Amino acid sequence: MTRNDGRSLDQLRPITIERGWSKHAEGSVLVSFGDTKVLCTASVTEGVPRWRRGSGEGWVTGEYSMLPRATNTRNDRESVRGKIGGRTHEISRLIGRSLRGVVDTRALAENTIAIDCDVLQADGGTRTAAITGAYVALVDAVRWAQAKKITRAKADPIVGAVSAVSVGIVGGLPMTDLCYEEDVRAETDMNIVCTGDGRFVEVQGTAEGAPFDRDLLNQLLDLGQLACAELDEIQRKVLEG
Amino acid sequence: MTRNDGRSLDQLRPITIERGWSKHAEGSVLVSFGDTKVLCTASVTEGVPRWRRGSGEGWVTGEYSMLPRATNTRNDRESVRGKIGGRTHEISRLIGRSLRGVVDTRALAENTIAIDCDVLQADGGTRTAAITGAYVALVDAVRWAQAKKITRAKADPIVGAVSAVSVGIVGGLPMTDLCYEEDVRAETDMNIVCTGDGRFVEVQGTAEGAPFDRDLLNQLLDLGQLACAELDEIQRKVLEG
Amino acid sequence: MTRNDGRSLDQLRPITIERGWSKHAEGSVLVSFGDTKVLCTASVTEGVPRWRRGSGEGWVTGEYSMLPRATNTRNDRESVRGKIGGRTHEISRLIGRSLRGVVDTRALAENTIAIDCDVLQADGGTRTAAITGAYVALVDAVRWAQAKKITRAKADPIVGAVSAVSVGIVGGLPMTDLCYEEDVRAETDMNIVCTGDGRFVEVQGTAEGAPFDRDLLNQLLDLGQLACAELDEIQRKVLEG
Amino acid sequence: MTRNDGRSLDQLRPITIERGWSKHAEGSVLVSFGDTKVLCTASVTEGVPRWRRGSGEGWVTGEYSMLPRATNTRNDRESVRGKIGGRTHEISRLIGRSLRGVVDTRALAENTIAIDCDVLQADGGTRTAAITGAYVALVDAVRWAQAKKITRAKADPIVGAVSAVSVGIVGGLPMTDLCYEEDVRAETDMNIVCTGDGRFVEVQGTAEGAPFDRDLLNQLLDLGQLACAELDEIQRKVLEG
Amino acid sequence: MTRNDGRSLDQLRPITIERGWSKHAEGSVLVSFGDTKVLCTASVTEGVPRWRRGSGEGWVTGEYSMLPRATNTRNDRESVRGKIGGRTHEISRLIGRSLRGVVDTRALAENTIAIDCDVLQADGGTRTAAITGAYVALVDAVRWAQAKKITRAKADPIVGAVSAVSVGIVGGLPMTDLCYEEDVRAETDMNIVCTGDGRFVEVQGTAEGAPFDRDLLNQLLDLGQLACAELDEIQRKVLEG
Amino acid sequence: MTRNDGRSLDQLRPITIERGWSKHAEGSVLVSFGDTKVLCTASVTEGVPRWRRGSGEGWVTGEYSMLPRATNTRNDRESVRGKIGGRTHEISRLIGRSLRGVVDTRALAENTIAIDCDVLQADGGTRTAAITGAYVALVDAVRWAQAKKITRAKADPIVGAVSAVSVGIVGGLPMTDLCYEEDVRAETDMNIVCTGDGRFVEVQGTAEGAPFDRDLLNQLLDLGQLACAELDEIQRKVLEG
Repeated sequence: MTRNDGRSLDQLRPITIERGWSKHAEGSVLVSFGDTKVLCTASVTEGVPRWRRGSGEGWVTGEYSMLPRATNTRNDRESVRGKIGGRTHEISRLIGRSLRGVVDTRALAENTIAIDCDVLQADGGTRTAAITGAYVALVDAVRWAQAKKITRAKADPIVGAVSAVSVGIVGGLPMTDLCYEEDVRAETDMNIVCTGDGRFVEVQGTAEGAPFDRDLLNQLLDLGQLACAELDEIQRKVLEG
Repeated sequence: MTRNDGRSLDQLRPITIERGWSKHAEGSVLVSFGDTKVLCTASVTEGVPRWRRGSGEGWVTGEYSMLPRATNTRNDRESVRGKIGGRTHEISRLIGRSLRGVVDTRALAENTIAIDCDVLQADGGTRTAAITGAYVALVDAVRWAQAKKITRAKADPIVGAVSAVSVGIVGGLPMTDLCYEEDVRAETDMNIVCTGDGRFVEVQGTAEGAPFDRDLLNQLLDLGQLACAELDEIQRKVLEG
Repeated sequence: MTRNDGRSLDQLRPITIERGWSKHAEGSVLVSFGDTKVLCTASVTEGVPRWRRGSGEGWVTGEYSMLPRATNTRNDRESVRGKIGGRTHEISRLIGRSLRGVVDTRALAENTIAIDCDVLQADGGTRTAAITGAYVALVDAVRWAQAKKITRAKADPIVGAVSAVSVGIVGGLPMTDLCYEEDVRAETDMNIVCTGDGRFVEVQGTAEGAPFDRDLLNQLLDLGQLACAELDEIQRKVLEG
Repeated sequence: MTRNDGRSLDQLRPITIERGWSKHAEGSVLVSFGDTKVLCTASVTEGVPRWRRGSGEGWVTGEYSMLPRATNTRNDRESVRGKIGGRTHEISRLIGRSLRGVVDTRALAENTIAIDCDVLQADGGTRTAAITGAYVALVDAVRWAQAKKITRAKADPIVGAVSAVSVGIVGGLPMTDLCYEEDVRAETDMNIVCTGDGRFVEVQGTAEGAPFDRDLLNQLLDLGQLACAELDEIQRKVLEG
Repeated sequence: MTRNDGRSLDQLRPITIERGWSKHAEGSVLVSFGDTKVLCTASVTEGVPRWRRGSGEGWVTGEYSMLPRATNTRNDRESVRGKIGGRTHEISRLIGRSLRGVVDTRALAENTIAIDCDVLQADGGTRTAAITGAYVALVDAVRWAQAKKITRAKADPIVGAVSAVSVGIVGGLPMTDLCYEEDVRAETDMNIVCTGDGRFVEVQGTAEGAPFDRDLLNQLLDLGQLACAELDEIQRKVLEG
Repeated sequence: MTRNDGRSLDQLRPITIERGWSKHAEGSVLVSFGDTKVLCTASVTEGVPRWRRGSGEGWVTGEYSMLPRATNTRNDRESVRGKIGGRTHEISRLIGRSLRGVVDTRALAENTIAIDCDVLQADGGTRTAAITGAYVALVDAVRWAQAKKITRAKADPIVGAVSAVSVGIVGGLPMTDLCYEEDVRAETDMNIVCTGDGRFVEVQGTAEGAPFDRDLLNQLLDLGQLACAELDEIQRKVLEG
């Protein structure tokens, strides 16, 4: 059983993670899941938002955006419309939560890391590519902060790895890492965010068509855990490289 | 093993659904999950948004909001701030998707139903109470539209029931329908939206603290399906009453 | 001479004021003038806005809003539109001024009371119902602050009572407490805000159709003072109860 | 009993109304009440807002604004802040209502007249100066429209004259046309909008300090009617000139 | 070779600069370039924006706006639209830069001068009229600040004069100070801002139709320098007067 | 006389223009001027904005934006701030005007081309790199439209080439294509937009420090024309390639 692009049901698209893409950011990555390309930058600033001052803990935020022509037809810029749409808000929040899931904010000390994920080209799975790439940028930014000795000395702010993948049911078949063409046809769409040791940081499944039963849900969770393990492997190699 | 308010781990708070709360709306409900109170109104208007015109299909939207002092401390109004926050956007979208999951938009014909869920008092689980109440308001609004003969004659736009509940892990224990005090302490928080026949419309689980493993996830899914079955029972009685 | 709903020209609709409606707010009231229902909450916060700091005086603000389906047809949310309309602004300012008219801000010390008036169901006279209910919520909030000993010891911040009523000329006849159906037909519409001893805090009369002469104005003022005296009586009983 | 500037209690400041101030607008006036200077332009456009189309009736709107340094200290522009304040909204609405009070919109046919009142210099009473000047600009714009034969042939869209004045109680004394220095000290502030024959279009009285009784209210109404009669006289001469 | 209004190609329209127009502002000017009339006010406030505090240097800002009916057809207010347009932004920035070009911010000490240029009537060249008038208002404001001894004692914050003019190519002919009717027909439009000694602060040339060659550019620069020298002469007389 | 990076005064940085960068856009280019990298996409849509309908002419617009961490320190997103800054507006307008300068909108027929220039990495000269790259993307988009036969048959919508460069005076020396470090030190900054035959589309010179005289202006114009001729050469090769 193969797909349009020849992949098997549980196969990821070609994944590339290019570290050090930007000369300015403390951490930066251009991540590709097939034709989906996201530029992830991690910016370190000393200090934390007002509500967190004096806590001794750092903070990690995420912001997601798409270039107007990242997609097949052009979308108006949110800056021009003067407001951020619900989808953008939702994904930005997901990215922030996912990364905070593997950060010890106490070890980070009162520093803020802002992760920007800008989709340069979209072909499905932009949010999961963003999380997967952002983790690598985050690690580089934390290492930079450690080298600058602004974090706590004896603890590593990075307490785990995190990656994400979309899985879904298309034409009744559960499959991994949906491209856009599969995504629009999916009956069920699920985003899974896992740590390096296979536990869940976030699980979001939505019935786009008919509701799904427990058995299909389990198959999707299996596929997601499997794919995240592969992504974890890729991230590790890139970070060693 | 009991909780602060004496409930067992798998026990819902007292649930009330008061139909016909408003004299103006085609469907309206004041729903309570314990001290959480949400006013849900369903407004029918003939016609659909521009992008759907001529499709022969209707549309269902959701909007969620909190009164400024629904919570323990007062929050500024989003209208005064001039923008809608990410959390509000996220929940509004969830409500809309959940209700569309049980509506046959073709049977609805080119009519729009706008569901407004305004939280009058919050004590945890506002989004799940909102969905559970909104379903009842939606049914009343659809019945009103059918009586007015603006929907298709031979098909019922309501193709299933939908309810929602929050489940979570607090102090290592999986439990059902978290109140605010439990919610802030939860290590994992999951919102489950099920149809009347126990299938899933939406599953959203988030690790607030440590990541959760597959086994805990399964326990949460069990609790959620169980609670939704109870809520489905309550909705049915209210709609019959 | 009776009206559609059988009232005499100078008769108020059934008035109810339900104290302690909310578990969170320091003062809260659900007020009804017939089918008009407004939830009024009074929130106490220590401190005052920046421009008032160091003055030794407190502050009282009002905010008014309508739920989208409080009215016969649904109105878009002001938060979604991204701006507050002129009518909302105007009424919020009126509520704030009216309540400040009976508060000794020096006795209140540097504390702020924010009054939120959210119209759950509208049938004419929402602003006057809001003021009448808000006064009761305000008193409860001030008593709470006094019990917490954050106000000045020897002076009562509440220096009078305040209530409000709409009066108008419909079909040439001056009448009290217009319901929506009367309000849309009114040639002249007047909102009167009085203290418990019958003096005026605010008088706002508008010719919707033909201009009105001094004699009609006097009749409206008579009706307004009479109705406010009744409302004052009701408020007093509720506060004693 | 005289005032700082030597006026008697019932005396207006020097009033000037300069017609035809702008080369572009169909009607335009620079009105002065002492040092208060407001530029009023009336712009005619064929057609009406969407909600009024097909009604056969025209529409008149008002917009009020202050230049940033019209006042003693500079205020930020509302365009820069990105939102219109409550005071601006309130006054714009008052201007629109006041002018519509003397317009037969049916005779105007489906044309819109937009009245812009921009305060170039403020010294109290800007809204009443605006209304008084705007009326003259409105008449000129209507005459222009009549000459262009876009209004109904046999009826005059102008059915009366309208002017406005502020009155108030300062140091216990009722007085007419308060300048800024009197306005800030006023215990009660009232804006009165009258037609040429002495009837009321709008009455807005506010207790800034202690509430006011019926007797003081009557004295203020007397002063207001007297001053409006004088303003009516001035408007008439200007329009004849 | 003469123009519609009889001017020669290198001739300015009648220029008037009325100093001390406003009773409130520290400097104020009503400037006319023919029918273009701009009210320029300069407001002094002690202190500087946050990012400049502690620098020992002052700041000068410019804001430009048009009244809605300054032009031939009415434009919506930017405050009503809730955002500032690109053209307004561009011109405000140009005004600020041009004036800062002749101010020694160190001599100004930590004071801010806000220049507001509000176009009361437009007939082409509003931005250049604004700069030319604003300079005179600025000088008056600085003299006021010096008299109040809030600037540095031994240095003059005004280090040069600045004026501006539009030049352009219309029907193939380079000409000075284009009125609106010429401006819309211009193939090339250039704004030139010069100091009193004939050097450039800003040069902005735009091909509206065909690109322009170096020779035409030189002719436009010649015209611009000539006209600015005349404007400098006029400013000087006004400031002496 | 060499610069920090070893360039001579009249030397451009290494220029690369990568065509066909995006799989979705009708024209797309990743342009680099040294470390400045801008992604330019050209999107063709049939139809024109409302104000241009029925004219038989097309339209070309430009939008410029910077990713938050394109620069050395992170800037807040304009979408998050809810408004577009003056600088962004100014540059977007410049890009649109520059490209329209070489387009025959009649030959384009009623089609719109939207050019998006998103700065991925900034090191000075972002607007001039954007224009230079955007021209190539524009040509590709127009060729696509011609192949689709939606433009007029016998005329080429592209009537010339356009490129842009920044020149400036740094430490008294006129130089070409300033990098960021030179740009902040520049006394005068000038952006020059030229057609392929060496004529000017736009000239914008600003004195950042002391005003500049005619002689320096001429030297800057010489440098600009020279550099644009080189850029024109590069564009031509890329388009042939």
